Amino acid sequence: MSPEEFRAAGKQVVDWIADYYAGIERHPVRSRAEPGEIRAQLPAHPPERGEPFAEVLGDLEEVLLPGVTHWQHPSFFAYFPANASGPAILGDLLSSGLGVQGMLWATSPACTELETVVVDWLAELLGLPEHFRTDAAGGGVIQDSASSAALVACLAALQRTGADVARRGITGRHVLYVSAHTHSSVARAARMAGVGADNVRVVDTDPATLAMDPRHLDELMAADLADGAVPTMVCATAGTTSTTAVDPVRAIGEVARARGVWLHVDAAYAGVAAVCPEFRWINDGVAEFADSYCTNPHKWLLTNFDCSVLWLADRAPMVEALSVLPEYLRNEATESGEVIDYRDWQIPLGRRFRALKLWSVVRWYGAGGLREHVRGTARLAREFAGRVREDPRFELLEPVPFALVCFRPRFPELGVEEANERTLRLMGELNDSGELYLTHTKVDGRVLLRLAVGSPQTRREHVEAAFARIRERVDAPA
Amino acid sequence: MSPEEFRAAGKQVVDWIADYYAGIERHPVRSRAEPGEIRAQLPAHPPERGEPFAEVLGDLEEVLLPGVTHWQHPSFFAYFPANASGPAILGDLLSSGLGVQGMLWATSPACTELETVVVDWLAELLGLPEHFRTDAAGGGVIQDSASSAALVACLAALQRTGADVARRGITGRHVLYVSAHTHSSVARAARMAGVGADNVRVVDTDPATLAMDPRHLDELMAADLADGAVPTMVCATAGTTSTTAVDPVRAIGEVARARGVWLHVDAAYAGVAAVCPEFRWINDGVAEFADSYCTNPHKWLLTNFDCSVLWLADRAPMVEALSVLPEYLRNEATESGEVIDYRDWQIPLGRRFRALKLWSVVRWYGAGGLREHVRGTARLAREFAGRVREDPRFELLEPVPFALVCFRPRFPELGVEEANERTLRLMGELNDSGELYLTHTKVDGRVLLRLAVGSPQTRREHVEAAFARIRERVDAPA
Repeated sequence: MSPEEFRAAGKQVVDWIADYYAGIERHPVRSRAEPGEIRAQLPAHPPERGEPFAEVLGDLEEVLLPGVTHWQHPSFFAYFPANASGPAILGDLLSSGLGVQGMLWATSPACTELETVVVDWLAELLGLPEHFRTDAAGGGVIQDSASSAALVACLAALQRTGADVARRGITGRHVLYVSAHTHSSVARAARMAGVGADNVRVVDTDPATLAMDPRHLDELMAADLADGAVPTMVCATAGTTSTTAVDPVRAIGEVARARGVWLHVDAAYAGVAAVCPEFRWINDGVAEFADSYCTNPHKWLLTNFDCSVLWLADRAPMVEALSVLPEYLRNEATESGEVIDYRDWQIPLGRRFRALKLWSVVRWYGAGGLREHVRGTARLAREFAGRVREDPRFELLEPVPFALVCFRPRFPELGVEEANERTLRLMGELNDSGELYLTHTKVDGRVLLRLAVGSPQTRREHVEAAFARIRERVDAPA
Repeated sequence: MSPEEFRAAGKQVVDWIADYYAGIERHPVRSRAEPGEIRAQLPAHPPERGEPFAEVLGDLEEVLLPGVTHWQHPSFFAYFPANASGPAILGDLLSSGLGVQGMLWATSPACTELETVVVDWLAELLGLPEHFRTDAAGGGVIQDSASSAALVACLAALQRTGADVARRGITGRHVLYVSAHTHSSVARAARMAGVGADNVRVVDTDPATLAMDPRHLDELMAADLADGAVPTMVCATAGTTSTTAVDPVRAIGEVARARGVWLHVDAAYAGVAAVCPEFRWINDGVAEFADSYCTNPHKWLLTNFDCSVLWLADRAPMVEALSVLPEYLRNEATESGEVIDYRDWQIPLGRRFRALKLWSVVRWYGAGGLREHVRGTARLAREFAGRVREDPRFELLEPVPFALVCFRPRFPELGVEEANERTLRLMGELNDSGELYLTHTKVDGRVLLRLAVGSPQTRREHVEAAFARIRERVDAPA
């Protein structure tokens, strides 16, 4: 494709995307495709001869779009939001266009240096500690996801135990600590790092707050030590995936510090809220105790996937765990020790110029615009929660600290299991309607509906329409 | 950013990229930035107020571009190519624009189903075995990189040993087998999976072909077994990073099969060459013996990073190793067993709609266009090799099976160490010139220069200019 062909096709694509956003509400939020339906419409064999790009756009519209669930739809309230935004999409386009590899500083210095600047900016915007900044012993790095960040943290934690896992492999019994509400990525990291799911302890949570109990954590660690195991990492969550519960990072940190155990703080969803001073409380204990900390601009901060930022208080054990330098990657800059090679900070070797999209977002919105986005979406969620709270037909899970509302219809005439089934059926009907998209979780054996606000497309009318639709379905005959 | 603002800024970005490609030769290939130089020009603090997108583009041009190494420059011959192409960039733009999450089939069915179709197409284009196709027990999946693919393969291999590593963690001594020329990602996978670098055996290579010696592999496995260890995975490489040597996959496979050991075939760079029948020989033994196989369209097949395809002969041990299903991800489609959830096939949970870019590439170029690209670049490399072979000042590493040429100036008057130093200095001077970019490797203690052809921008004149420039520097007084 020549530059001029690219110019023409590129403008068609930009128009397509602009039109897609302008008309996004004409699509059902959740795809109605049945398994295999999209695949059946695609040719089983690749074309022998090339086709014009317009054909690709045509099939995208005709064949693929009915199989797309519209994550950017203003009535997408499922999971957590995964926001795109114009500047993020364009920053990412620039990254694709430049097509540089950022595995080493030397392979494209600007890729590394802009990333350093932008993660330092974000640390400042969130009020994270000075020692997370790259000038100190720590530093930040963009990962593809909080899952990979958790794995990197786990590998660093294993290395810091002194067992030299990178060289010798897992030889003892290393133990990780989570709660029942910790994201499954930590259990997955345990499986991937050779720790094993059996060596993940589930710490009790407070039944009221769903937050991890630091005393029980300490007891479990003491028992493991007595049993000859090596307590290695605890993951505290600021804003759990299930309900946005917040673990007591400070108290957990005190226990971890006393035992020499790595504290990873997973603030994948909620961490970015700290752009607003009124949400800074979620950083309590981070400065004093967190060995690693992760939050995802690709959730609630307008930066399209993938953009998860991991900070470390001390990058040395991570680099020790992950650095291998074959001859074909040797270069003067690396050997000078003056530069960062982010390949030693992540699972893959190669890396995109992802800093461009986060840079574009911060510049387009400014700190003020980012605060407004978080504040505005949190306000809409609180308003929705207010409606639920006032309505006797519903029970609200309190508090609602961020922009996720967990609630359930009471169905007073039904037992727990029947109510759960009815709630899931209700959710299915709502999602089938195409007018909104919710997901669910389970707390204490009870199904809760989850409504997360986060899209820059979402306005008050969408949240009010969602409440109206849900209430209507609850009132409908079963 | 409203859809109309996006439309306007998006077209500016498309123009910027088109102009960048049209004028790419005015840039020095390798950035001349010194460590810290780019960072020093960027504001230390984020802006409080948003800025127009034109400011971002302005700073990209003024501040960042001097720090960019131009991987898409026609005289970029370093590392392996990491091609972008117009259709790939636009496919990726569509992925960013749609902003869907493909972690589950249910989170956007088209994202999963198009990926299945496209990796099946690629398997067909490369002549890979039927059982790699998703209809069978195996299947293909897009990973970010061959490094992550190697880690996934390693985790599947560990699981298949029956030790239930996912549940119990590493309890025995598992051993991986590589050669001195295997990519460092396998050693890194060993570190990350808890196997440990000490448990990676380096199998001898044939001094003439640099290919792994299957008899030595068998001896090492026998010794490990006698020692109570568990031979777990061997990685055979079709086209090593250092010199594109090709391991004897069939003979290695016979040894691995007899011992019940997982065979991973790393064809990250060269595998895509099999779009051409004349390169299909690199698949010898894959159908019969490979448990997993990886090649990167993001290297030599016109698809911008990240796009590495991993196929498995049997996906079950991988899914067993990687699947964890928390309540908030439960859904009917997953429970029906009728769909693929690619989150169980990769390290992270979240995933981009990466199939769009590979689909765009295959459709724009067609099978014929892809063959032409591989053939044309391989021809240019052979021509360069011919010049080197004919010139008494140089020594060529033979054969040149793909599009990488390894060679060195003879410097007959110098000892090995002096010649190495002189060669590295020569490379530094060439790279400093900005006219071309080469990297190096070391074989048998001797530094070799590596010149890899692969960009769709590269024409005969660029390769000839490179040879002229290199010869000129060799002739220059030291």
